[in-house]
Amino acid sequence: MTTRVAVDALGGDHGSHEIVAGALEAAADGIRPIVFGPDGLDTGGLDHVVTDGEIAMVDKPAEAVRARPDSSLVRAVRSVADGAADAAVSAGNTGAILAASLRHVRRLPGVYRPGIAVMIPTRRGPSVLIDAGANADARPEHLVQFALMGLLFAEEVLGVASPRVRLLSIGEEPEKGNQLALEAHALLRASGLPFDGNTEGRTLLEGEGEVVVADGFTGNVALKTLEGTIRSVLGALREEAEGSLQARLGGLLIRPAARGLRARLDPETYGGAYLLGLHGIVVIAHGSSSRRAVANAIRLAARGVEHDLVGRLARRLQAPVERPPE
Amino acid sequence: MTTRVAVDALGGDHGSHEIVAGALEAAADGIRPIVFGPDGLDTGGLDHVVTDGEIAMVDKPAEAVRARPDSSLVRAVRSVADGAADAAVSAGNTGAILAASLRHVRRLPGVYRPGIAVMIPTRRGPSVLIDAGANADARPEHLVQFALMGLLFAEEVLGVASPRVRLLSIGEEPEKGNQLALEAHALLRASGLPFDGNTEGRTLLEGEGEVVVADGFTGNVALKTLEGTIRSVLGALREEAEGSLQARLGGLLIRPAARGLRARLDPETYGGAYLLGLHGIVVIAHGSSSRRAVANAIRLAARGVEHDLVGRLARRLQAPVERPPE
Repeated sequence: MTTRVAVDALGGDHGSHEIVAGALEAAADGIRPIVFGPDGLDTGGLDHVVTDGEIAMVDKPAEAVRARPDSSLVRAVRSVADGAADAAVSAGNTGAILAASLRHVRRLPGVYRPGIAVMIPTRRGPSVLIDAGANADARPEHLVQFALMGLLFAEEVLGVASPRVRLLSIGEEPEKGNQLALEAHALLRASGLPFDGNTEGRTLLEGEGEVVVADGFTGNVALKTLEGTIRSVLGALREEAEGSLQARLGGLLIRPAARGLRARLDPETYGGAYLLGLHGIVVIAHGSSSRRAVANAIRLAARGVEHDLVGRLARRLQAPVERPPE
Repeated sequence: MTTRVAVDALGGDHGSHEIVAGALEAAADGIRPIVFGPDGLDTGGLDHVVTDGEIAMVDKPAEAVRARPDSSLVRAVRSVADGAADAAVSAGNTGAILAASLRHVRRLPGVYRPGIAVMIPTRRGPSVLIDAGANADARPEHLVQFALMGLLFAEEVLGVASPRVRLLSIGEEPEKGNQLALEAHALLRASGLPFDGNTEGRTLLEGEGEVVVADGFTGNVALKTLEGTIRSVLGALREEAEGSLQARLGGLLIRPAARGLRARLDPETYGGAYLLGLHGIVVIAHGSSSRRAVANAIRLAARGVEHDLVGRLARRLQAPVERPPE
């Protein structure tokens, strides 16, 4: 069966043309993208659901979702709830994607809050950071659920055999952290989940744990600091490499070797982040996504469907967590 | 008058020999380091205060400070309160430096909490991140004081003419953030301080604001993510540049151009962070400090004394903040 992925054609910084181009790229892999966008949009032959209205990046999420039920963003997300699509991808307003998902796709039984799970390209392969920004304020028990969701993501989608969890904090010792981190640490320790204690931001690219949990505020700050620092450092190096003839020659010679690293560190390689904890797969793509990033976000969505991430998560949430022997 | 800087000879990861070497380097600049360390320590001719006991990185800060009043760390910090030194530098247990400072150097009148102010090497020159980890849990009004302290640091020590403040959050819009950030944003807006709104972690190296404020948990996570990412990216590039003969040649050619960038991004260039809001200057150096980092931390401490950072801060805290005209 071909996986049908609803794609919101509006909302990306590069316009609907770029989004459609990404959808066409993903379609070549045997995925069936369904493009949600305004009348007259050229979808290059892809299925087209005509929508009316757009939610902008600056709109207030909950209000906009209520006021524009026929916008491309809301319709794309809603199609997952309707069964018209198996998953949805949007590069639009993150808050609005979250609000539309909560309203239409709804939370799985037992889920306190959905979490944004994003892949981090570590030295040892991809790891998962969750929550990367769905919930600015969280309670300790939310972080335990994020850990559970992240573990399933790592096992099913990343194919990690026995993933382990770390809590993002300000020191490795259990007593380091703010009140939320201290309580989350204690709950994770008692949860029976494979928990290895705290980790610091400095290890994010080193891959100490396959799953790193945080509240959405801390996770989002860490993710943006990580992405921004990669971009700033590579950008500054590129500038230096243009400063003199010698440096330019050096840059040319080193380029093939650096290509693999650049590809690994490029957020577009993953394309998007799962919003986990819902009755369906929703992928949030970067607003600045190129066609390649959009295609990868659609592939990520399809992979979640193929691995029945939602069904597995629903079963895992109902099963009591097994305690390891003392 | 020569500035006297108390230097804790213990606590660095590289041993007291490295710390003393750094102190000797700073002494060549006309600063007068006073080395606090055990009997028999070779201080290379520098003043030596003999101390008894050591506080380890893993010790519980408050307990250790109470139990070991004659340790090098506590004695060095206490010498600032006694007037035996003008400032203190330690590469030891951060929590213990904070506890000893609160106990002996004490807060300036009106200061809720001291904050750790660290320099961030942005494209546009150094900026200040405060609080980088003194207070894992903070209240909104603490962040306003951190802003005030950071502004003074930027003006006096970094020589920035009209520094501006940003709040570290998860989006530029005022309504983006957790509860603490939302409330801090409103207070900063009303404070009369030169506040330009929120900033995200992605801009930390770009230098959007000269002063970036955060609670100590978020600030510490961001700082460590920043430092760790710089190290990971540069390390990975170095590895790539050793992968083939061609890449190795490219690396050699590019090295002189990259040297300036490496120096800028190296935390050792600054050497340490101020603990601001006290009746004296205390500088916290990285545990992993080399002699160069120690020397720079001592220079930073001396600069704070020469600019009367403490006196200016005390006066600023008493003066009502001027409101800009509506």
